[in-house]
Order: sequence, then structure tokens, then C-alpha cells
Amino acid sequence: MTFTSARKLEHIDIVRKGGVEPQETTLLEYVRIVHRSLPEANLEDIDLSVKLCGRELGAPLIITGMTGGHPDVEPINAAIAEVAEKFGIAMGVGSQRAAIEDSSMIHTFSVVRERAPHAFIVANLGGAQLAKGYGVKEALKAVEMIRADAIAIHLNIGQELFQDEGDTKFSGVLEKVAELVEEMPVPVIVKEVGTGLSAEDISALRSVGVKCFDVAGLGGTNWIKIEALRSKAKHGAPLRDPASIADLWGNPTAIAIVEARNAAPDAYIIGSGGLRDGHDVAKAIALGADVGGFAAPALRALSAGREGLERYVSQILYQLKAAMLMSGSKRPQDLWLAGITIWGRLKDELESRGINIGSYLNSRAMTLLWRRRDNDI
Amino acid sequence: MTFTSARKLEHIDIVRKGGVEPQETTLLEYVRIVHRSLPEANLEDIDLSVKLCGRELGAPLIITGMTGGHPDVEPINAAIAEVAEKFGIAMGVGSQRAAIEDSSMIHTFSVVRERAPHAFIVANLGGAQLAKGYGVKEALKAVEMIRADAIAIHLNIGQELFQDEGDTKFSGVLEKVAELVEEMPVPVIVKEVGTGLSAEDISALRSVGVKCFDVAGLGGTNWIKIEALRSKAKHGAPLRDPASIADLWGNPTAIAIVEARNAAPDAYIIGSGGLRDGHDVAKAIALGADVGGFAAPALRALSAGREGLERYVSQILYQLKAAMLMSGSKRPQDLWLAGITIWGRLKDELESRGINIGSYLNSRAMTLLWRRRDNDI
Amino acid sequence: MTFTSARKLEHIDIVRKGGVEPQETTLLEYVRIVHRSLPEANLEDIDLSVKLCGRELGAPLIITGMTGGHPDVEPINAAIAEVAEKFGIAMGVGSQRAAIEDSSMIHTFSVVRERAPHAFIVANLGGAQLAKGYGVKEALKAVEMIRADAIAIHLNIGQELFQDEGDTKFSGVLEKVAELVEEMPVPVIVKEVGTGLSAEDISALRSVGVKCFDVAGLGGTNWIKIEALRSKAKHGAPLRDPASIADLWGNPTAIAIVEARNAAPDAYIIGSGGLRDGHDVAKAIALGADVGGFAAPALRALSAGREGLERYVSQILYQLKAAMLMSGSKRPQDLWLAGITIWGRLKDELESRGINIGSYLNSRAMTLLWRRRDNDI
Amino acid sequence: MTFTSARKLEHIDIVRKGGVEPQETTLLEYVRIVHRSLPEANLEDIDLSVKLCGRELGAPLIITGMTGGHPDVEPINAAIAEVAEKFGIAMGVGSQRAAIEDSSMIHTFSVVRERAPHAFIVANLGGAQLAKGYGVKEALKAVEMIRADAIAIHLNIGQELFQDEGDTKFSGVLEKVAELVEEMPVPVIVKEVGTGLSAEDISALRSVGVKCFDVAGLGGTNWIKIEALRSKAKHGAPLRDPASIADLWGNPTAIAIVEARNAAPDAYIIGSGGLRDGHDVAKAIALGADVGGFAAPALRALSAGREGLERYVSQILYQLKAAMLMSGSKRPQDLWLAGITIWGRLKDELESRGINIGSYLNSRAMTLLWRRRDNDI
Ligand SMILES: Cc1cc2nc3c(=O)[nH]c(=O)nc-3n(C[C@H](O)[C@H](O)[C@H](O)COP(=O)(O)O)c2cc1C
Ligand SMILES: Cc1cc2nc3c(=O)[nH]c(=O)nc-3n(C[C@H](O)[C@H](O)[C@H](O)COP(=O)(O)O)c2cc1C
Ligand SMILES: Cc1cc2nc3c(=O)[nH]c(=O)nc-3n(C[C@H](O)[C@H](O)[C@H](O)COP(=O)(O)O)c2cc1C
Ligand SMILES: Cc1cc2nc3c(=O)[nH]c(=O)nc-3n(C[C@H](O)[C@H](O)[C@H](O)COP(=O)(O)O)c2cc1C
Repeated sequence: MTFTSARKLEHIDIVRKGGVEPQETTLLEYVRIVHRSLPEANLEDIDLSVKLCGRELGAPLIITGMTGGHPDVEPINAAIAEVAEKFGIAMGVGSQRAAIEDSSMIHTFSVVRERAPHAFIVANLGGAQLAKGYGVKEALKAVEMIRADAIAIHLNIGQELFQDEGDTKFSGVLEKVAELVEEMPVPVIVKEVGTGLSAEDISALRSVGVKCFDVAGLGGTNWIKIEALRSKAKHGAPLRDPASIADLWGNPTAIAIVEARNAAPDAYIIGSGGLRDGHDVAKAIALGADVGGFAAPALRALSAGREGLERYVSQILYQLKAAMLMSGSKRPQDLWLAGITIWGRLKDELESRGINIGSYLNSRAMTLLWRRRDNDI
Repeated sequence: MTFTSARKLEHIDIVRKGGVEPQETTLLEYVRIVHRSLPEANLEDIDLSVKLCGRELGAPLIITGMTGGHPDVEPINAAIAEVAEKFGIAMGVGSQRAAIEDSSMIHTFSVVRERAPHAFIVANLGGAQLAKGYGVKEALKAVEMIRADAIAIHLNIGQELFQDEGDTKFSGVLEKVAELVEEMPVPVIVKEVGTGLSAEDISALRSVGVKCFDVAGLGGTNWIKIEALRSKAKHGAPLRDPASIADLWGNPTAIAIVEARNAAPDAYIIGSGGLRDGHDVAKAIALGADVGGFAAPALRALSAGREGLERYVSQILYQLKAAMLMSGSKRPQDLWLAGITIWGRLKDELESRGINIGSYLNSRAMTLLWRRRDNDI
Repeated sequence: MTFTSARKLEHIDIVRKGGVEPQETTLLEYVRIVHRSLPEANLEDIDLSVKLCGRELGAPLIITGMTGGHPDVEPINAAIAEVAEKFGIAMGVGSQRAAIEDSSMIHTFSVVRERAPHAFIVANLGGAQLAKGYGVKEALKAVEMIRADAIAIHLNIGQELFQDEGDTKFSGVLEKVAELVEEMPVPVIVKEVGTGLSAEDISALRSVGVKCFDVAGLGGTNWIKIEALRSKAKHGAPLRDPASIADLWGNPTAIAIVEARNAAPDAYIIGSGGLRDGHDVAKAIALGADVGGFAAPALRALSAGREGLERYVSQILYQLKAAMLMSGSKRPQDLWLAGITIWGRLKDELESRGINIGSYLNSRAMTLLWRRRDNDI
Repeated sequence: MTFTSARKLEHIDIVRKGGVEPQETTLLEYVRIVHRSLPEANLEDIDLSVKLCGRELGAPLIITGMTGGHPDVEPINAAIAEVAEKFGIAMGVGSQRAAIEDSSMIHTFSVVRERAPHAFIVANLGGAQLAKGYGVKEALKAVEMIRADAIAIHLNIGQELFQDEGDTKFSGVLEKVAELVEEMPVPVIVKEVGTGLSAEDISALRSVGVKCFDVAGLGGTNWIKIEALRSKAKHGAPLRDPASIADLWGNPTAIAIVEARNAAPDAYIIGSGGLRDGHDVAKAIALGADVGGFAAPALRALSAGREGLERYVSQILYQLKAAMLMSGSKRPQDLWLAGITIWGRLKDELESRGINIGSYLNSRAMTLLWRRRDNDI
């Protein structure tokens, strides 16, 4: 078994123990969706279906990539896949590097397609691997391994910098991503892992053709914190102590979503990082995302078995439907027309980033028109 | 006894136990009425009388609709009615559906008119019932049952969505309300139940002729929370778990009042939801309401009998008079000319809703002129 | 002994016990005086002398009116007078009504002039007494009783409204004050007692000739709270329960000072209400006051005897000098040129009151020029 | 041994015990550096070298002046010097007055040059000494004593005012500083000691030729507090009680840095006062400083010996490198181009000081161009 594989298991353990979220939050607590008492719709009129990266989902939700690469985690992937299949939601796998390096690990990933023959499944490779030599060949392998509908490239510079064995080469990733966009048979999603994409990076990536983003903002699972905990457990104190960076560094999810939509009005945007219920998903979409995503809560729900995860997802979807009905939204993207208020720190930070809130909120409607005209991107 | 009837009793019990208010507040704590040291008036000059929906009240206060429909609650309605009669304040009854379905329940409502022959009494039906078929016929029955001065239609979509047996059809309510406005011999009040009316809904309702609104905003009794508690008590966990929606969803009372007045400058507006003393009532009026209202505190005051409620109301009225005198206001609507300050989150949220605070505060005076010219609406 | 006299003693007792300050603060905690590292002055260059209402003080400080009218409080007045004499600061006496009603009480006030032959002493009568018939005759008596340099008329509507035996007539006070301004041989100061003067009242008073104000804002001793405590102690519950008014009603000191200076650029303004050290006094002056004042802390310092008060005042003066030197101010009014910052709630509230902070801060310099030109008002 | 010398030891003891930071913070907690997921750089590309006052440093860090002047503190200076030499960072010594008054103390300072033959070493004298007669002669002595690369004049008016034996003459310091700038063979740095330089002082000093500043803002070690603690320990209560001045007076570090850069776009600015990790250093630089500095944490790290300090500095440098890489900055001054957000109190205070945040952030780039054109100042 490789180091990569063993590390995967340690990560799952640490996340399960909890305490892996930073002091800073998503800033979604500075957002309110205006309640409508008279929506002129029935609950049964709510239609959760959306398109994500050109394919239809049953609901605007994705369980983002976490695992694979170790025999012990195969049941996790299998359970998530079954739930994704059942609700028609999307699902990502964890980095497939372990299976590319060691083909005995392939089934820990491919189980996903077996259990979710129709779901939107996302393959996964790291930007750090691209920097070190991975390219179209490995990406194709990853996609084929699970007959993926898209491939996500995760950018986890924070994690690598504070991981004992972290890769600290990040040069050349943009060029490699551009190559993948050009060559891959499926859409390329660029994602963070909990520190949040920024307007600057979205713009750069959009300019080389990326049209799908998972912002994975600050406020949920924090990989700088996890690596510090892991190193501390091994050496008594973290080898590379992040100090306040573990709690304060990153683009909070609410900001990352707004920056992403503002920088890429025509892109598919997954709002994620710290989303914990259907209300959060509704806020993420209302702020400009196409769908909401989460990772760690799925792990925790699985402690009550597949049924636990099923119940959790079905509650999220009910809460989302309720939030939609109570804001007069029949389709998820109608949330882009819903009234929302923004205050305090979130307001100030967005203004600091040159984003006028009133204009931004209006501009969400433009994306909707665009989406409706093209019926896809 | 019907289910509707039994549920009524459970609700009263839960409210009495307390813990039914959301984490979010009314936001009235971000409002300050400017103190005047030199009001050039005496306490005896303060005249609390106002008009509400075309009829005069002894004071700008209403105990909003709560109950009826179960023999055990008849004493509650009787006591509130006696207090309303005594102070010349308005009173609503709870949803009359139980008595329309089962005539043996009528007296639990009609006791109100017996005990309050002169008070302004408000009949009550649910928007959800209108959506399912109720119409002018049932509304007339409700009004006649208690010789009501007005009928309130309550919009409680949040409650229905998270109630085990909730109705989730809300289509067609606006049209039905329009019909009632046209046909009913008494004014139609549209009210929320603690989640707050919004500018959008007020505008739609005003455009079909509604002239009386009870905003019933977030910050007081929260029906999403109550239904979750009720369901949890029955099933161990709520069947439809609202998660953070129970604590964070809704239009806070301060915002709902401003949005209502801004959207309907000529309407009668009841500011309610979380008002707990005469200071709160003064703030609600100063923000633009015609009268203040409350519900749950009446239940709690009744635990010390009718005298308890009497004492509570008389304290509220004294506090209101004091606040009026200390702001240089001889009549309740003079509070629309009083200086007030707004800060922090409330300021930001109102701006997010396109409301310029300075202009809005000035515009309150226009409603006053209007009211004085028409001597009614 | 009269009721008035007995009440005076109860008040002193309650204040000594503490817990008489409201939940709301002075808002001075949202003000920062810019530190200067290079003041180009020595401590000995700091000259604390100022003019107040046309007379020179040794330092910009007044212990505002508290007591007299009961034999037991005579030592309090005597001690404060000795301290005032020693430091050349001003001092007010409490309401002289008790001595006007009962001449046996005169010495409890006149002791002040005996012990402070040269100090600036302020006589005191209530606005409520003016409303009920007092006039020039009684005011002259009050002034002569202590050979006062000025007479303060206190406006305490909040206290009266929630005092068991409170007077609730406040009509006609302005006219009476105008008469006093016209007829009295000494300047008339209009003061609050802890609820804060407002721009509206200052303007009205300035227009009838009042040139001296003591804002006595919210954040320090709160008379609504004290009367509620007193009533509760007597009857188990307050007869007139102020509810949240006891904690939240009033114009905070920082706001009252700015409103006063803004409404009366040429007036003498005593900034008071909740000032507790020399830093607070410096902030009050920097915000626009001529001098700072306090009351309750003097009572508390006296629990260690006259020496206790002496030590307290001398510390305040040292802290004030330090704050002046560290802001490059040689004379108290140079603080009007010092840089200050204002944020958060105070900023928002001032803007709500139509006050542009930048312009206001600049305009403080105009008062300075005015003062220098006239060498008096 | 002189008093000066003994006091030095007491100070070190108090700082080691802790509790010497004010209630107010640096306000750096209202600053966020925008995270970049795609920096297109490798960790090894990060080059920490910068110029400070015309000389190159290995990293943008200085351990600012603390000690010397007592035999017991010589090991402290020796250890800091060795660490400075190792990392190529700058180091200041404490006030050299003790050694100028008593030549037996010289070695407690000169040990620094012995252990750090190549490091940037800063001599130190007090502004208060200049005011009392020190001049070029003493300054030359101080520089020669340690073959210093620069001399810092510390302005500690707050400390002097509340020190039992404090000097309270601050007149004439500016002129003396001007003389030093003219006559000294090395650059003159003007520094605070934890209360923060202001725009006004920076402008005055820049106008007499000072080009190097150490802002030493509020939020870290607080000398007013330390002197109050020291006096209290001796006399039971502080002789000169600073009251709230000990916790609230001063220019917070974040503000001091922005004011300094805004007032002196071409100067070298050391951002210091309360910086505790590499993230803080990155924020200080991003706000406009050239390098970051700290003092007290070095003392505390030394409780684990020289190795403790070495480990601490090496962690700070790693955190700084990480922050730079994660914000797309290859050189420290590239942080001036990094996105940052500012909110809440810091935003309001800067606006109060006439600083438009957007314009200010843009203007940082101008300093960069200037610096690159001149390749020095
Ligand atoms: C146990 C675990 C493993 C993860 N592994 C990966 C991974 O291999 N590749 C990836 O792109 N993201 C990975 N992530 C990041 C998630 O996809 C997600 O972006 C992040 O956890 C933030 O969402 P959350 O707050 O809902 O957990 C992992 C997350 C967790 C909790
Ligand atoms: C026990 C109880 C029962 C209620 N029942 C009704 C009802 O039948 N119809 C209605 O319009 N509102 C009903 N309400 C809502 C109240 O009229 C009011 O809008 C809401 O409680 C918010 O005000 P509060 O915070 O002062 O309680 C009820 C409230 C309570 C506490
Ligand atoms: C015990 C006590 C008695 C007072 N009596 C009077 C009074 O008779 N007349 C008056 O004008 N103010 C009176 N005041 C009000 C004070 O002058 C002052 O305005 C108020 O206490 C706020 O200042 P502080 O917070 O520093 O106490 C009294 C205050 C105290 C504490
Ligand atoms: C023990 C100690 C002694 C100090 N002595 C001096 C000094 O002699 N001269 C000086 O300019 N600053 C002196 N300082 C101030 C520091 O240089 C620095 O400006 C201040 O401590 C703020 O930084 P910090 O919060 O990182 O400690 C001293 C600081 C400490 C902790």
C-alpha cells in the first residue's frame, strides 16, 4: 500500500473525529433570503432539476470528492454512489492518484459507477500532480476508471504547504488545465478543497476555457487545520505550524460564490464549503451558484449507514424545496431572482473587492436569461 | 373532536412552555427613538386613540388571533375579550376553521363578542383553506359567528411546510383574497403568523385592493419552530426537520414594518411579531405601523388570570404613553414625526432592499397628511 | 421633614448600592482620539483653564448637581465644595426645592458656598417645578441661597414618569425658561439628568436665549432605573414598570454632545452622563463639549472621605492632561482640533440624525475661532 | 548600577509574566488577504529578501529594540543577535542610555555586533533624552558602540507619562531629530514603542528628512499598562493611574501602518506592535509596510533558549512564505499588489481619518514602482 493510500485513511479518521472547521465561517450567516408569504405555488410545483456542466441533475446538489484509494474506504464510495443514484444528484470521487499509481486500488473508485449507473459522476486529480507531470493521459485514465461525466482538478495549495509530505510546486498548473480543457472528452471542473476560489483565479481559468467551478470556500472542512492536526499527532507539534493561518486564511464560501459568478457569468458554479443544510444550499444558489455541494457531512451521516446519508440528503432536499417555495422560486435558478439581503462584514468585504451588491444581485438575472437562451453552455 | 381542534390545544401548550422564539430577533434592537426632554405636553394630553381599518380604537394595540375551536380554550378567548373591551383595544380570534367544520365549537369563538360587545374583533381564516376551496361563504360564516369588524386571512406557509399534517398548496390564494376584498362586508386584513410579510407580497395584495396588513414578523413566536418541536415530541425527531430554517428564516419585524409602509403608504399596518412591551410598540409605530400587536405574551400573562392580562396591557399602555410623551408625540401617529436612529444590520438590510433610510423616514409624514386629509382610508 | 427631603436620601442610598446604569452605554467606546507621539510640548505646558458660561475654571470639569435638602447629606455637599474649591472646578447642588419649601433645609445647600468661596457654583431647580408654578422668584431664592454663579434647570421627564409620586406635567417649561434667561442675574444652564438632551430641544432652548447646556446623556446614572428599583423595593414590583425603557431609552452621551454642539455652535456645553475617568472627559471635549461633568462617581469616591474624592479628581485631571499632551493639545479646546475616529453604531446613529461626521469634526474648529474672537459668549 | 539599568530588568520581568497587552487589538483581525489557488509559482521561487533603509535583509523581519544596559540581559541580546545573523534579519537593541551614562554597561550592547557581524543592527536612544539634552554626540556614541547600521529614536510619551520616574518633557524633539538626520552617518529610524505613530507625526518627521519609521502600534506590548503594573507592584496602587488609557489609548497597528504609508509613500516602514506570526507579518506588509517587526514574542521564545527563538523565527518565515505563495507574491513587496479586504471598525476608522480604502490600496502599487525605479530611497 502506498503512502498516498495510507494518508487517505488518516484523513477520513480525523474528519470523523471533528474539530476540522476553521474559526472563520462561510459568511452565509450575513445573508437572508426574503420570505414570501404568498408564493402562488404548491409544494408539488417545485421542480428541483437543473443542468450542471451540460447534464441534467434531479436536484441541485453534489456530494463532492472525498475518497477512494484504500480498500477500507470502498464502502464509503459505494454508499454515496447509491444515494446519488437514488436522488439523481451528482457525486465526486476523491483523488484517483492512488489508483493510477497502483491498479489494485481501481475498484475502490469504480464501485461508484457500478452503484450509480446513471448519476453524474466526477473524476478527480490534483493540480499538484499536474504540476509534477500528470497530463491528459492520466486524466483519461481517471475518467475511464469510473466512466466519469466530468473531471475535477483540485487546487489544494494550502494543504500541500502544511502537509508533512506536501508538494510545494504549483507552477504550470494553468497551462496543464488549459490542455485538459482542450483534450478531454468530458468537461473539466476546477475546484478548491475548502480555502475558496477567488475572482482572480476564476478569471484566469475562464480565459483558458474552464466553464465549471467548485468554489469550496472557507468555513467548512479545512485542510490546513487537518494537516496540522495530523502532523501534531505524529510529532507532538506540527512540523510546519500554520499558526493563525489554520483558522483565518481563505476565501469564505459566500464571497467565493459571488466572486465566481461575477467573474464568470456564464459558468456552472458549485457553491460549497461548509454547507450543512438545505437552507445553506438555497443561500448558496441565491448568491449565484448553480448547485450546492458538501463533503464532510456525508461522511458523518454515513456513521448511521447508507440510510443515514439517505435521510440526510432527503432532509436537505426538503429544506431546499421549502426555501424555494417560501421565496417564490419554482426552479432552483429562480432563486437568482429572489430578494436577498447582505449585511455587516460580508457587505464590507464584497465592497472591498469592488463588487457593488445591488448591481451584482441584479446581474444574477442575466445569467438566467443566458442559460435559458442557450439551454446549456 | 377534529384533528384541527386537538392541534389547537397542543399549540397552546407548547407556546406556554416557551422556547418558541427564533435565534434571529425582530431587529427592533437596532432602532432608537430620540428622547425629548422638553416635550411641551403633559401626560394627560396624550391621546392613544387611533383608527384601524376605518374604526376607532381606544389605543393602538391589538391582541392578534390565537385560539378558539376547542372547549378548553374558550376561557382564554373570554378573558382576552374582556380585556379588549375594557381598554378599547382590538382583538383577533384564532382560525375559525374548527367551528366551520364542527358547529359545536362555535361558542368557543362567539364568547368573544359576548364579552366584548364594543371592541374591534377580527375573524380569522387560513390562506391554505382558501387555496383548498374556502371562499366568501365560509368567510361570511366566520364574520357572522362573532359579528366581526374585520376578517384576517393568515398566510402561514412556513408552518404548513413543517407541520406533520401541513397543507402545502398555496396557489390561488391571491385571487381568493381579491374576491373577499370585493365581496366581504368588512375589511380584509392579510396577516402573517411570525415569519413576516414582504414588500413583494404587500404590493401584490395592495394591488388587488387589500388595505389592512398585519406584518407578524420574525423575532417572536415562530411556527416553524413550534411544529418542529411538536413533531419531535411525537416521533423522537421532526418528520420534516427544518434545521436552520427554524431559527433563521423570515422577515424580521422591523424590516417587515418598513417594507409594508414603503410598499403601501396608504394602508393600515399592524406592526407585530415579538413585541413585548410598550417601548416595542412605540418603536413599531415610529417605524411606520399604525398600531402594535402581540399574541403569545397574552397567553403567558393569562397564567395569572384575566387580572394578569389586564395588568400587562395597562403597563404596555403606560409605557407607550411614556414613550410618546418622551418623544414629543401627543397622538400615536405623531410618532411618525419623531426622530429615530437606525444602525448596523438593520441599516444594511434595509439598504439591501433598496430602501434609503433618510427618505423613508421623511415619507412617514406623507402618510400622516394623507390620513388627516381623508380622515380614513 | 418633607417627602421631597426623604426621597433625596433614598436616592443617595440606591446610587451608592450601584446597578443604576442602563444596558446601553455612552457610545464613547466608539470614539478614539488619535495618539500623537511628537506633541512638541511638555507636561507643564498643559494649561487646563477654560471658560464656562463666562467665568474661568481651573480645569474643564464640573461635579454636577446631586444633593442637599436633608440634614444627612450636608457633609456630602461640604466635601464636594472643598474639592471644587481646591481644584478650581465647578460644582452643582441638587434640586433646591426642599429648601425653598422648608427653610430649615437651607444650610444643607449654603454650606457649599461657605466651603467653596471662589468656586463656580450652580444652583438647581426642576423643570417640573417650573411647569407647576415656580418662576423667577424661586429661582432668585435658589441663587441667593448659595450665591450661585449660574442656575441649572433640570429636565427629568423620564424620572417623573416612572417615579411613584412623579409629576407628569411638562407643558410650559420652555416659556418659563425663557423668562428666567431674561430675568435672572446669572446664566441659565439647562440640563438633563441622564437621558440626554437632543438637537431638537437644544435648538428650541437656544432660540429662547439659553447659552449653557449640560447634556447628561444615557450611559451613566439612569433615573428611570433608579425609580423602578425604588418602587420595587417598596411594593414588590414597580407601580409603573418601565420594562425595556429602563435600559434602552435615551440619547447616549456621545450622541448628545455632538447634537448639542451641532445645534448650538456658540453655546457652552457640559458633556456628561457616564463619564468615569479623564480619558472619558477628553473624549467628551474632543467631541465638542467645553467641559466634562460627572455626578455618581463623586458619591462613590466619597465613601473614602473627602480625600477619596480629592484623589479621584486629581487622577482625572492627570489623565486628562496626559490625553491632551498625547493628542498635541495644550489647552482643553485644542482637543477640538485633535484627530478623532468614530465607527460602528455611533457612526450609523449620527448619520441617521443627519450629521455628516467629517463636516461635523471640521466645524468644531469654527467654535474655537468664535470663542477666541469673543473671548466669551 | 543606575536606576535606568535596574528598571530595564523590572520591565523584562513584567513582560515575561504576560498580561501586558491592551484590551484594544491591532485591528489586523479586520483584514483578509485574498487566497489564490493558482499562484503559478513554487515554494522555492519565493524570495524573502528586501531592502530596509537602503540595506538588504534576508527576510522582511526585524526583532525590534528591547534590552541591554544590565549585565543580566546580555545573554538576551547575544541570543537575538545570533538568530538575526543566522536568518539575515534585522535587530534593534534597547535604549543605550544606560551604557552612555555608565561605560561598564557597554558590553551588554556591543555583544550584539560580536554575535551578528553581518546583520542589520539598529542603535537606540529615546526622544525624551533628546528633549533633555542628548544630541549628535550621544547618538554617534550609540552607533559606534555596536557599529550600527541605523539608529532608532523611540518616542514613548505614553510610557513616560505613567512611569513613576517618567520624563514629561517632549518639546524640541522634532528639531533634534532633524539634526540627527542631517549629521548622522547612518539612517535615522523614528519609532514608537506600542502606541503607534500617526499620519500627523509621520508627515512632520518626513518633512525634516526622516525616511525610516517603525510604527509600533497598539495591540501588542503596552508600556502604559506595564508602567501601571510596575507602579502598582511598588505602591499598592499606581501613582499615576492611567484608568482606561492603559487599555484603549493609541493608534492600532493596522491603522498606523496605513497612515504611515499614506503620509510617506516613499519611506521605509516597519509594521510592528502585536505581530505574532507570519500571517500577521504578511498582513502588515500587504497593508503597506516594508517589513514586519516584533519584540515581546522574542523574549518569550527565549524561555526555550536560543533554539526556541530560532524555531519561532523559522516558523514565522515559513508562514510568511506560505502566505506569500497563497497570495501569488514571489517577493515581499508583491504583497502590495495582493487583493485584501477590510471591514467593520477598521474600515470606519480609516474613513474617519480621510483615507479612502480603494484608492489607498491602489496607491500601494505606486510605492512599488518608485522602489523599483530608485532601487533604493
Ligand atoms: C475526508 C475528505 C477527503 C477529501 N478528499 C478530497 C479529494 O481527494 N479531492 C478533492 O478534490 N477534494 C477532497 N476533499 C474536499 C471536498 O471535496 C470539499 O471541497 C471540502 O471538504 C469542503 O466541503 P465541506 O465543508 O462540505 O466538507 C475532501 C474532503 C474530505 C472531508
Ligand atoms: C398559541 C397561538 C396560536 C395562534 N394561532 C393563530 C391563528 O389561528 N391564526 C392566526 O392568524 N395567527 C395565529 N397565531 C399567530 C399570532 O397571531 C401572531 O401573528 C404571532 O404569534 C406573532 O406574534 P407574537 O410574537 O406576539 O406571538 C397564533 C399565535 C399563538 C401564540
Ligand atoms: C444621587 C444623585 C442625585 C441627583 N440629583 C440631581 C438633582 O437634584 N438635580 C439635577 O439636576 N441632577 C441630579 N442628578 C443628576 C446628575 O446631575 C447627572 O446629570 C447624572 O447623574 C448623570 O451623570 P453621572 O452618570 O455621572 O452620574 C443626580 C444624580 C445623582 C447620582
Ligand atoms: C522588554 C521590552 C523592552 C523594550 N525596550 C525598548 C527600548 O529600550 N527602546 C525601544 O525603542 N523600544 C523598546 N521596546 C518596544 C519594542 O521595540 C516594540 O516597539 C514594542 O514592544 C511593540 O512590539 P511587540 O508588541 O511585538 O512587543 C521594548 C519592548 C519590550 C517588550
